[in-house]
Amino acid sequence: MKTYKIALIKGDGIGPEIIDEAVKVLDAVASCCDIEFSYEEALMGGCAYDITGDPLPQETINISLNSDAVLFGAIGGTKWDNLPREKRPESGLLRFRKELGVYANLRPAVVYDELINASSLKAEVVKGVDLMVVRELIGGIYFGEPKGRDENRGYNTMVYTRDEIVRIAHQAFKIAMTRSKRVCSIDKANVLDVSQLWRDVVTEVSKEYPEVELSHMYVDNAAMQLIRDPRQFDVMLTGNIFGDILSDEASMLSGSIGLLPSASVGAKIGVYEPIHGSAPDIAGQGIANPIATISSASMMLRYALGENDAADKIDAAVKRALKEGYRTKDLAQYDAKEICSTSEMGSIIANYA
Amino acid sequence: MKTYKIALIKGDGIGPEIIDEAVKVLDAVASCCDIEFSYEEALMGGCAYDITGDPLPQETINISLNSDAVLFGAIGGTKWDNLPREKRPESGLLRFRKELGVYANLRPAVVYDELINASSLKAEVVKGVDLMVVRELIGGIYFGEPKGRDENRGYNTMVYTRDEIVRIAHQAFKIAMTRSKRVCSIDKANVLDVSQLWRDVVTEVSKEYPEVELSHMYVDNAAMQLIRDPRQFDVMLTGNIFGDILSDEASMLSGSIGLLPSASVGAKIGVYEPIHGSAPDIAGQGIANPIATISSASMMLRYALGENDAADKIDAAVKRALKEGYRTKDLAQYDAKEICSTSEMGSIIANYA
Ligand SMILES: CC(C)[C@H](C(=O)O)[C@@H](O)C(=O)O
Ligand SMILES: CC(C)[C@H](C(=O)O)[C@@H](O)C(=O)O
Repeated sequence: MKTYKIALIKGDGIGPEIIDEAVKVLDAVASCCDIEFSYEEALMGGCAYDITGDPLPQETINISLNSDAVLFGAIGGTKWDNLPREKRPESGLLRFRKELGVYANLRPAVVYDELINASSLKAEVVKGVDLMVVRELIGGIYFGEPKGRDENRGYNTMVYTRDEIVRIAHQAFKIAMTRSKRVCSIDKANVLDVSQLWRDVVTEVSKEYPEVELSHMYVDNAAMQLIRDPRQFDVMLTGNIFGDILSDEASMLSGSIGLLPSASVGAKIGVYEPIHGSAPDIAGQGIANPIATISSASMMLRYALGENDAADKIDAAVKRALKEGYRTKDLAQYDAKEICSTSEMGSIIANYA
Repeated sequence: MKTYKIALIKGDGIGPEIIDEAVKVLDAVASCCDIEFSYEEALMGGCAYDITGDPLPQETINISLNSDAVLFGAIGGTKWDNLPREKRPESGLLRFRKELGVYANLRPAVVYDELINASSLKAEVVKGVDLMVVRELIGGIYFGEPKGRDENRGYNTMVYTRDEIVRIAHQAFKIAMTRSKRVCSIDKANVLDVSQLWRDVVTEVSKEYPEVELSHMYVDNAAMQLIRDPRQFDVMLTGNIFGDILSDEASMLSGSIGLLPSASVGAKIGVYEPIHGSAPDIAGQGIANPIATISSASMMLRYALGENDAADKIDAAVKRALKEGYRTKDLAQYDAKEICSTSEMGSIIANYA
């Protein structure tokens, strides 16, 4: 029997509730797949600041680097909004991504047939959508220097080096090879110098993947095409902030941001987390949708641990729960047979897994 | 009888076709509103480069500054994509905006009841949408220094000064006072220093408009909320690149980007233009939708010339044409009674105006 060490970072807001459900589901598949998980909890975000004075204590990095994978909930909340920037929960998360070196953030947007009516888009527009945003995660304007502000001027630098673009482009092309073999690279090359380099380097890297069809699209047009005709996309390759914007937009195709998982990879240890935030307004009420986190756990099994059978079981269990009409509150209006709480939904999926 | 001098910049691609229709409609309202237009054409974009070697000849600036308002089509095309950056059509447009000083780009997104089925979003989501994106147009990452690229590194600077934020914020609040009195300011203040200044200054300026309700939203969330529940927005105040992305996204609420006009104001002379591009793929075929440009001419009458009656006439004529089922090709599938060409649509609207 194989034992995996999982670092659990519950974080703030609804983070603890949704991680608990993912753990429930992981333990359920463990027993039938002859694997075992040992969990170690670590602090990040506002809760880490409250206890240690630092949104990312060194111990959290140590625990994570000493694990097989990190399962992460969410961080942030208005409570910490007025702290100096480096103490804010978000700073902890950004430093965490950087310290681990997870430069590639994979954000699949898949529309479940069972929830085809849940999207604000027409069913015929979103039916069958299955795209993957590959977002560069530890570069671009999130980290560029110089940056700063005083009373009269604020500035940040959007910067990419050739090496940073090369490695994220390889990720996108490799993923495309396992899918429909199309990469659409998003930039603003008609205005930005950094985007011109991006476009040139992506085009160079594409030569190594002759089977993959590469296209380029300006980010403003991409924001439009994503809702005009989302099925045109297979893999969308983007820089950090464009990916932040477009993946949140893409989440709406599926009907609820509470459904969508993500994987941050590219380094020894990967981070698996829902794409939604900590939703402090609904924390503790037992109404959060745990599916995004449960699906993140499935991505962890698949990408970090190579436990594809266990991952398949989880994916099938999620589908079955939706098909049978179980819905958390965010999706209550859509073909619901039964409205369930966060932990009820976790139990149902664990039961089916 | 009052005579207005209009600078016409047709530009590239479908630019000439759509401007011709707007002129047709302007002349139609002129005769009944006791006004007169004298037009002077000026070159900008790829066509200007082809003729003069410069995408923005000095003469174009002179003609524009010597007019009462500028009516502009669109620029750009793959033909000029490989020119050095400063020769590209887009560089001409950016320099033009900067030279004129039009720092406020107003982009209304309105959903016509007549076209409620044309959006890829559900009718019940978009019905009654009436929002205005107020986009800062001559600052931010489009113009920030330093910028540049070599083989190994590309960079741009997203920068705003207090004064730049103050003036665009005033525009947004003033416009909100004429509407539903709500401003949602979009930023990424949880990550970007420049956004923190943006948020602080917008909050300060809001004190002068106690009747207007101000809220703040992160740009990733805004990209999501725009399709989840677009009616929540009245005025969206954004920086240059966030506004570029979000206004293109918002255009999809209306069903076709071929419907939406814009006004670039804040200086002596304003520029009125459709928000869509030059669409080189359909240029010369007579299938472009002229309504965005015709509605831009209406915005020009209203904002630049104070000719509200004439503007009302145009707006009513556009609605009537849509209501009676006239459609250009982009909207052919939606409750069309008759499919018409670019110039037929122009004539119908001119006739109704
Ligand atoms: C919380 C925030 C810093 C973060 C980001 O912008 O990367 C979040 O929006 C995300 O997409 O994971
Ligand atoms: C053509 C391009 C430079 C321009 C911009 O990004 O401002 C266009 O997309 C627009 O929105 O007017």
